[in-house]
Amino acid sequence: MQLRTKMDTPGADAGDYALGLGRNARAAAREVASAGTHVKNMALISIADIIEQRSQNLRAQNAKDLRAAEDKCLSGALLDRLQLTQDRIEGMAQGLRQIASLPDPVGEITQMRSQPTGIRVGRMRVPLGVVGIIYESRPNVTADAAGLCLKSGNAAILRGGSEAIHSNLAIAQCIEQGLKQSGLPASAVQVVNVADRGVVGSLLTMPEYIDVIIPRGGKDLIERISRESLIPVIKHLDGVCHVYIDGAADIDKAIAIAYNAKTQRYGTCNTMETLLVADAVAAEVLPRLCSLFIQAGVEVRGCKKTLALCPQAVLADEKDWVTEYLAPILSIRVVDDLVQAIEHIEQYGSHHTDAIVTENLTHAQRFLRNVDSSSVLVNVSTRFADGFEYGLGAEIGISTDKLHARGPVGLEGLTTQKYIVMGDGQIRT
Amino acid sequence: MQLRTKMDTPGADAGDYALGLGRNARAAAREVASAGTHVKNMALISIADIIEQRSQNLRAQNAKDLRAAEDKCLSGALLDRLQLTQDRIEGMAQGLRQIASLPDPVGEITQMRSQPTGIRVGRMRVPLGVVGIIYESRPNVTADAAGLCLKSGNAAILRGGSEAIHSNLAIAQCIEQGLKQSGLPASAVQVVNVADRGVVGSLLTMPEYIDVIIPRGGKDLIERISRESLIPVIKHLDGVCHVYIDGAADIDKAIAIAYNAKTQRYGTCNTMETLLVADAVAAEVLPRLCSLFIQAGVEVRGCKKTLALCPQAVLADEKDWVTEYLAPILSIRVVDDLVQAIEHIEQYGSHHTDAIVTENLTHAQRFLRNVDSSSVLVNVSTRFADGFEYGLGAEIGISTDKLHARGPVGLEGLTTQKYIVMGDGQIRT
Repeated sequence: MQLRTKMDTPGADAGDYALGLGRNARAAAREVASAGTHVKNMALISIADIIEQRSQNLRAQNAKDLRAAEDKCLSGALLDRLQLTQDRIEGMAQGLRQIASLPDPVGEITQMRSQPTGIRVGRMRVPLGVVGIIYESRPNVTADAAGLCLKSGNAAILRGGSEAIHSNLAIAQCIEQGLKQSGLPASAVQVVNVADRGVVGSLLTMPEYIDVIIPRGGKDLIERISRESLIPVIKHLDGVCHVYIDGAADIDKAIAIAYNAKTQRYGTCNTMETLLVADAVAAEVLPRLCSLFIQAGVEVRGCKKTLALCPQAVLADEKDWVTEYLAPILSIRVVDDLVQAIEHIEQYGSHHTDAIVTENLTHAQRFLRNVDSSSVLVNVSTRFADGFEYGLGAEIGISTDKLHARGPVGLEGLTTQKYIVMGDGQIRT
Repeated sequence: MQLRTKMDTPGADAGDYALGLGRNARAAAREVASAGTHVKNMALISIADIIEQRSQNLRAQNAKDLRAAEDKCLSGALLDRLQLTQDRIEGMAQGLRQIASLPDPVGEITQMRSQPTGIRVGRMRVPLGVVGIIYESRPNVTADAAGLCLKSGNAAILRGGSEAIHSNLAIAQCIEQGLKQSGLPASAVQVVNVADRGVVGSLLTMPEYIDVIIPRGGKDLIERISRESLIPVIKHLDGVCHVYIDGAADIDKAIAIAYNAKTQRYGTCNTMETLLVADAVAAEVLPRLCSLFIQAGVEVRGCKKTLALCPQAVLADEKDWVTEYLAPILSIRVVDDLVQAIEHIEQYGSHHTDAIVTENLTHAQRFLRNVDSSSVLVNVSTRFADGFEYGLGAEIGISTDKLHARGPVGLEGLTTQKYIVMGDGQIRT
């Protein structure tokens, strides 16, 4: 795999290069789709072994990226995400072995039922075909995404950020080697090795070669790709997540859940950004919770009723209700009841993850049914909305779309179901 | 519902009109989503009754469309599709009653499993929200689509062809009346009542108000909508369907299936367009089959080997293998074996519906696994690829997409699944 950084005629060249990727991927996809579980698992384990064996090389290549990033004065957070420590390298290898240990979703037959005509109709789970993943900075996504695509029988085209190109290509070489060792085509996983942005533009217009695009990164990246793509996109947009403390809540549970949902990690998409509290329990809940938040260094922005109960809070404005802070900031609103809580969530939320704390069964059921989010939780911290916690084994992202995959996307989200029909000579009359 | 046929400033007006439709639909969608099964069924049955009661009015409005179509010299086939006979009106009513009798997909909870942390994680089936359907000529689609969307808990925006506008609006009035009688919002089903094409353009750019677009009509319509839409589209494209007669086929079954797959109806998407025959049985199968096809008035276009066995056949060219004739024309190719048959289908087919005729279990399994089509059939006519035959009860189309819905799309395809999580105060550590 050769690194090209300069091209004479970027436009045309990028298009040709993308077309080559697409053709190779489509050809490889058929082989991967029909590969046995054992072969795919062997490849995953081989790749994991090679990544560990080459950890020194990976760190050396990563150091090049880090130096270039420092020269460009990238932020500390970005540098941290870019870095491949020994721990992270081992984490990649372990992740691949864990994917190998998951059940193979491909070939599963369900709902096989006889019809009045005597035919039997069911559904078979099959790979999507070719998956294109466009992501930023974290090089470990290269290994994770390759592993999930491979196990689910798909070919993958991976396009990481230009700031991680040396790291990504070093990981790509490990993948290529592991694929070859297990007899799978090397082009089952292709890592884009040119910096030209035109390549992404070309990939997005090749629905004949790519079946789905999964962007992973900031909102700008995802929105731009969704706009440009002629290929279906599985999107992972904002997490403006809510916890609603119901009038019938167990107060201790409510405080523990709300505190955890905000403070366990600030930068994740399933972190609570707005707390809603029923008027009936606000006086009991909010003073205790607010002092905990203030102690933890969380800035509290509240409605007028909140301010009366939390003296350190500042007044929230309309914009706060729609903001994903990803930071130690929390907006709080006192609501009349369950109905107003659901209305607030539907009006301002992002349909990602929302939780109710209540001991009332009817309230729990109404919340579950009427909140239109990818994950709806009862008496649990929003931080549980995650592929690992849900038992999917691994996730390639959390879909905020409604079609195809909604919520954490694991191996199943990278497959589809076709109808299969078994007969004995039936014809239609 | 008022019919406007002329607008002063079409562009801006169309945008405002579309926005109004979107807002109304989004508001209605929440009510329909939480409506009980009984209420939805009542509405469906009321609409069916009203359609029958107003059959005279429907036929009178339909006559206006037919006269306009005749004035425009539309083709006989188009006039036929446009016509609402008494039988077709009763068919619409019966279709709605049948949808009422189907199980309600909304609220179904599956895969509820405990996780090591003690939380229980499952999936709840919920409506998509707002479904936009854009279709041509057949006015009965208005009732079918409204019924399927309603039963699956969605609000619908329906945009029929301008040639059927009087018929569609008359049906829309029946729907509105039935919705009101059962206490559901009238805007749960909105029929676009202006001819301005700009309305469709505006609708396609409102992902905040419409969750999915389903175009029903010719390839041009579907491709144009897919290109313009910022909303996910469930597409129904070509059916270049194959029957492969394997070397291990039961010859009588093979002949019956191939004959039925071509001649039972010529104009449907699941009609066979190319017949593949294994070399080993070609001499036995093709002379008999060809004479049947010729007798039925089917033009046969074949490869050279076919020509040697079917003297009346003409030589097929490369274009024949990719053509959806929708007519009494059939292309035939003699292939070496199963492997070449699958290669042909993957190279030239449209991934819609493909069948094998064989008594060999291994061949059947390889065909099922390796043919990447929305329906893969064994020993059955391709004409069975249909929502009714599959036991879905009704279908809104046959998806040739891989994401979300693949193959016949019934009530389930108009829903999605969200994750639900039940806990007892769990927090993440």
